[in-house]
Amino acid sequence: MDPRPKLIITGANGFTGHHAYNHFSKLGYDVIGITRKQTFMGKENMKNENCDLTNKKDVAMLVERIKPDYLLHLAGQNSVVDSWKDPIGTLDINLMSAAYLLEAIRKVNPSCKILIAGSALQIDPVNLSNIPHPYSLSKTLQEIVSVAWKKLFKMNIVITKPTNLIGPGCSNGINSIIASKIVKMERNEADPILIVNNLNATRDFLDVRDAVNAYEILLNKGESGEVYDICTGISRTIREMIDIYKNLTDVNLEVKATSNQSGSEVETRKPSKLFELGWKPSIPFEASLRDTIEFFRTNPEICI
Amino acid sequence: MDPRPKLIITGANGFTGHHAYNHFSKLGYDVIGITRKQTFMGKENMKNENCDLTNKKDVAMLVERIKPDYLLHLAGQNSVVDSWKDPIGTLDINLMSAAYLLEAIRKVNPSCKILIAGSALQIDPVNLSNIPHPYSLSKTLQEIVSVAWKKLFKMNIVITKPTNLIGPGCSNGINSIIASKIVKMERNEADPILIVNNLNATRDFLDVRDAVNAYEILLNKGESGEVYDICTGISRTIREMIDIYKNLTDVNLEVKATSNQSGSEVETRKPSKLFELGWKPSIPFEASLRDTIEFFRTNPEICI
Repeated sequence: MDPRPKLIITGANGFTGHHAYNHFSKLGYDVIGITRKQTFMGKENMKNENCDLTNKKDVAMLVERIKPDYLLHLAGQNSVVDSWKDPIGTLDINLMSAAYLLEAIRKVNPSCKILIAGSALQIDPVNLSNIPHPYSLSKTLQEIVSVAWKKLFKMNIVITKPTNLIGPGCSNGINSIIASKIVKMERNEADPILIVNNLNATRDFLDVRDAVNAYEILLNKGESGEVYDICTGISRTIREMIDIYKNLTDVNLEVKATSNQSGSEVETRKPSKLFELGWKPSIPFEASLRDTIEFFRTNPEICI
Repeated sequence: MDPRPKLIITGANGFTGHHAYNHFSKLGYDVIGITRKQTFMGKENMKNENCDLTNKKDVAMLVERIKPDYLLHLAGQNSVVDSWKDPIGTLDINLMSAAYLLEAIRKVNPSCKILIAGSALQIDPVNLSNIPHPYSLSKTLQEIVSVAWKKLFKMNIVITKPTNLIGPGCSNGINSIIASKIVKMERNEADPILIVNNLNATRDFLDVRDAVNAYEILLNKGESGEVYDICTGISRTIREMIDIYKNLTDVNLEVKATSNQSGSEVETRKPSKLFELGWKPSIPFEASLRDTIEFFRTNPEICI
């Protein structure tokens, strides 16, 4: 028998999923990456299983077969825009698939260590009248169900609220969009005009590799039932990001903002509880941006 | 075209469903009773459709075909014991079927007036760490989703928290259990020994017909997004109930309690918001019990 602990990573084809797969494999875990339908984009020697996590029976069979010691649940519908188009599908994917996983694991290994990746856009459940969109609703309910399964069935479940994750890899976030556009400009495939919505919008950007480090610490030392912010605690503007990219490219960027609102759209949080567990961000913002643009330079087509 | 307003009643085969069907039919609504699989136990001239409300597509097709003006959502998994056995099935039935109905109605008639029958056992969402069992979780999440659909999509949705409903008809509640046992004793089909768990347990008992009156008022005058307690505001013990039954039967009842805990298990609430809309309970407790035992005397086999 393989003596290594078995770790299921859902959403293994995603931005964070790829990094998590590499990270935990190197640490010696027997990692099984779960993807929906696509061919797994990892290396050939990586383990991959296909599963539609909104199918209750398929989830139960998968978990029964693998009997995981750890679960890192990263899969989800992560688009606010798509959540308005399909609120029910968003609930199915973000809420019910988490419940299906928790219940399936309860039946085969209730002491499994579980991390549910929530979202900085989910809200504090004490403030439910402030739900801004179906995406936030789905992630807020995912948190409530996860905490309930911990409480009702005494399971080991940690919930996280990661902020905007950046760094090398295929992501739909604004950092990747900007970096990939600049690379297109460098290759003369696009005019050097960068159109952004609001240069003054602020976000807490964290390197995805720092987030994966936090997941490792939380899977081992996180307190069951607790909700952990994963962020830097520092807000930066889109303007600040673009200024750094200007120094990282020879393209003479022209930047146009379609609106000029001021102020932060997302409340700044402090990752105090993670700091107490010994975690801190280790990759400087500039290094994340450099690695991001370098990724698109060396993999110009991979994310399409 | 039928000029009568179309009212869908889900759970039409249930205890409250039967009373609601009769009540709204007499008022002139075009009532369509939804049942899962069983043959509808109503009168022959009543309209009935079969639908598994946990099937998203079936719900969408049903609602698209009927295009209701009103929805009275009474269907659900109402057993705490069963919720421990199947927490996921309980979420599917109580949470997701409500979401499927709301979303289907949003697409065909967003101004439809909707009443979601919650439960006195659901908790205030500001106090989520107190969730006692999967049933409470499912009904609490049903409330959150209903309020969210009202807020996000500007729909007309009222949520209720009915207390223990009693009266004639087939119910799994303690009142029906006691009445039907006494009728069996009257027919010499059972020994005259009544075993109950706790004579001092208190409940707020309300006649189901008074609850249906409340549903009528709320469907017409309830404020969208509000949660309404439906109860008498009066706590009664099981002992009190049995004492009344002793006066309603010639059986010389012997009563045994298996435990002797004191105190109330369910917080007493006041139906203040319903009182403001002009509702008040009209059927005395004693009359509810008399009608219940009379129902079992004249329908000895119907609920089996």
